Amino acid sequence: MARTILFLSDYGLDDEYVGVCHSVIARSAPEVRVIDLTHGIPPRDIRRGALVLADAVAYAPTAAVYLAVVDPGVGTLRLPVAVEAGESFLVGPDNGVLSLAWDVLGGATRAFAIESDQATLNPISATFHGRDVFAPAAVYLARGRALESLGKALDPAQLARVPSPDATVRQHRIGCDVIGIDRFGNVQLSAREDDLHRAQLDSVTDFEVRIAERAFLLRKVRTFGEASEGQAGLIVDSAGRLAVVVNGGNAAETLELGVGDRVEVGGRTGAGRLARD
Amino acid sequence: MARTILFLSDYGLDDEYVGVCHSVIARSAPEVRVIDLTHGIPPRDIRRGALVLADAVAYAPTAAVYLAVVDPGVGTLRLPVAVEAGESFLVGPDNGVLSLAWDVLGGATRAFAIESDQATLNPISATFHGRDVFAPAAVYLARGRALESLGKALDPAQLARVPSPDATVRQHRIGCDVIGIDRFGNVQLSAREDDLHRAQLDSVTDFEVRIAERAFLLRKVRTFGEASEGQAGLIVDSAGRLAVVVNGGNAAETLELGVGDRVEVGGRTGAGRLARD
Amino acid sequence: MARTILFLSDYGLDDEYVGVCHSVIARSAPEVRVIDLTHGIPPRDIRRGALVLADAVAYAPTAAVYLAVVDPGVGTLRLPVAVEAGESFLVGPDNGVLSLAWDVLGGATRAFAIESDQATLNPISATFHGRDVFAPAAVYLARGRALESLGKALDPAQLARVPSPDATVRQHRIGCDVIGIDRFGNVQLSAREDDLHRAQLDSVTDFEVRIAERAFLLRKVRTFGEASEGQAGLIVDSAGRLAVVVNGGNAAETLELGVGDRVEVGGRTGAGRLARD
Repeated sequence: MARTILFLSDYGLDDEYVGVCHSVIARSAPEVRVIDLTHGIPPRDIRRGALVLADAVAYAPTAAVYLAVVDPGVGTLRLPVAVEAGESFLVGPDNGVLSLAWDVLGGATRAFAIESDQATLNPISATFHGRDVFAPAAVYLARGRALESLGKALDPAQLARVPSPDATVRQHRIGCDVIGIDRFGNVQLSAREDDLHRAQLDSVTDFEVRIAERAFLLRKVRTFGEASEGQAGLIVDSAGRLAVVVNGGNAAETLELGVGDRVEVGGRTGAGRLARD
Repeated sequence: MARTILFLSDYGLDDEYVGVCHSVIARSAPEVRVIDLTHGIPPRDIRRGALVLADAVAYAPTAAVYLAVVDPGVGTLRLPVAVEAGESFLVGPDNGVLSLAWDVLGGATRAFAIESDQATLNPISATFHGRDVFAPAAVYLARGRALESLGKALDPAQLARVPSPDATVRQHRIGCDVIGIDRFGNVQLSAREDDLHRAQLDSVTDFEVRIAERAFLLRKVRTFGEASEGQAGLIVDSAGRLAVVVNGGNAAETLELGVGDRVEVGGRTGAGRLARD
Repeated sequence: MARTILFLSDYGLDDEYVGVCHSVIARSAPEVRVIDLTHGIPPRDIRRGALVLADAVAYAPTAAVYLAVVDPGVGTLRLPVAVEAGESFLVGPDNGVLSLAWDVLGGATRAFAIESDQATLNPISATFHGRDVFAPAAVYLARGRALESLGKALDPAQLARVPSPDATVRQHRIGCDVIGIDRFGNVQLSAREDDLHRAQLDSVTDFEVRIAERAFLLRKVRTFGEASEGQAGLIVDSAGRLAVVVNGGNAAETLELGVGDRVEVGGRTGAGRLARD
């Protein structure tokens, strides 16, 4: 049976780019199922693409083909690659967008450049490799063709990577950064639930969150509804990361937080002001 | 044969939430077809979600599974439920988002809490029941598993409801409210075509529409094109409701109308000004 | 085997219009595959819809059904039509939105009005022919029903057309217009790569682009990455048209260009200023 393709990009849906990739896949292999993970990755944001792809692995079919196109260097020397990790394949530009996902899948075991004209369209444009290279290579693999027939073997250790989101854990302090803001204004931090444990903050119920010169006191909540309406809280989100949320509201707007902001999370000291008070 | 799932949410498409739900469904049951009704319900707008879901029933496959996730109370005491109505099932939070659709389907005949770990992921997060509870339960039902195996039986009469959009009909006057604004700026009112009849306004061709202190004179038109370019009109829309439209333009912007505005529709008195004059 | 439907519209995805059309198709023919080319055509922009549809033909399955709904005249005298071109069918309003695609497919060979109640829903609303007429007719054809059974035959030469995007080529000068701006801010011009040849500009590496009183000097680049970060360049895009781009940036915003702007592309004269200097 054909493998399922999970497709992620920064193409958006206002243009026809995603639809044309679907068309290329359906023309070649109508039996292949394509799931659109999201095409709303901010333009050229390789790191965000890598994070979202990695978080999707736990909910994906086994033996899938991950097709990830966030590709500001399209047409330049960066190679189009296909990578084996666990039972799955990952297809995209060699710029790091695949790297966090192959980590979750158990590590990159083999990698090949996408070169064979059996696996791409002809000719190949200089600016739309999603259509001409990556979607065709993904469907080539989804139909069961051999990974090694794509092109020359690459050393997986030499592939481009993006840094994993990290947190600096000290006693009672976690330094981290804002790595995502969703439609609801929830502010995702790079720190994970177990960083609370490592910082000996597991039993703390009130946190101080500092961003530059500002400080907010946030109660730890398990659900949005545990905070009062309009009140901010600190939550463990559905990806297992700490997040700042506002019940019934938009935390990013209310607290003026943006992706890339450096944040320090600590036990409450009493020095800050209660968010929304 | 598996039932089709009709999926509606307020997740938007910029994030991966919808894609991950699709992935969970495909992993469990690749044969199940999922139709995305829309994921553009305004964040946390249970009433709008309920309205859109109900209007979709007439065009849905029979014996479908409706999956509706507009869930500001995720993780709190509100129950995840599955409801039987006609030959179909509805899956979502017990907050009213399903209620107008089950009315159209003939009324809720049975209801169960979603509790069985055969029908959900494990563990269940506190903030993403679309992925962990509702999508898995929808696919569980789509594959033909028994509704009563989901969990404890609930009294359908005790389920949460949202009020049906209503109109206050008097002779020559209909009081109603703005219940939706679409991409084109068309302004959907809660009044239905037969309210015109009940108000003895069927033969009227020119209407006065009052919003607070403002009044507009609108001609009744059957199509956008019957109004002059840029001219506003009153139309019966494709859901059978009255709507204020502007031919070639955006009525909501032109007439400064928003969801929730109270509107009075009456026979023309000559007191108002002609919209766009 | 059923034909694949390629679906394009200006419905957007925030409302349920696209989902309801999918629902109507799935209810009638679950075996038919529908590819969403895009639903982000600007509201009522027939010309943009026609252009995007035409550019998709080269990547579509053969013997497809093109379903294109950009229909400001819905419900008026403009006919709903189905057109044969090559091995494919095109379904939509007779307002020109199909015309550039049938040109690419080899020309319209037969055309019929969509009239049969076997091929439409009943009743037909005055404002949503995507749901009531076009999607049903597309699935009717996708399932192999005869084109001539739809309704009365029309003369293909009498169908509405939109003008092909054109360029005025003189020696060393190309007059053209901006026909599209994508999510990345890339500015697509109506001129094609071979217009450079016809203007004897093939070997030129630096171009002057004039818009009204403004002039920019742009280097010809093959990829975004050939321009310096933040620098504008002139590129041949993936549809074979000239485009103004900014590496890592948004050309439309940077250079203040919009759809419909008249642009003159010429060999460098030294009179302009270098974009972004």
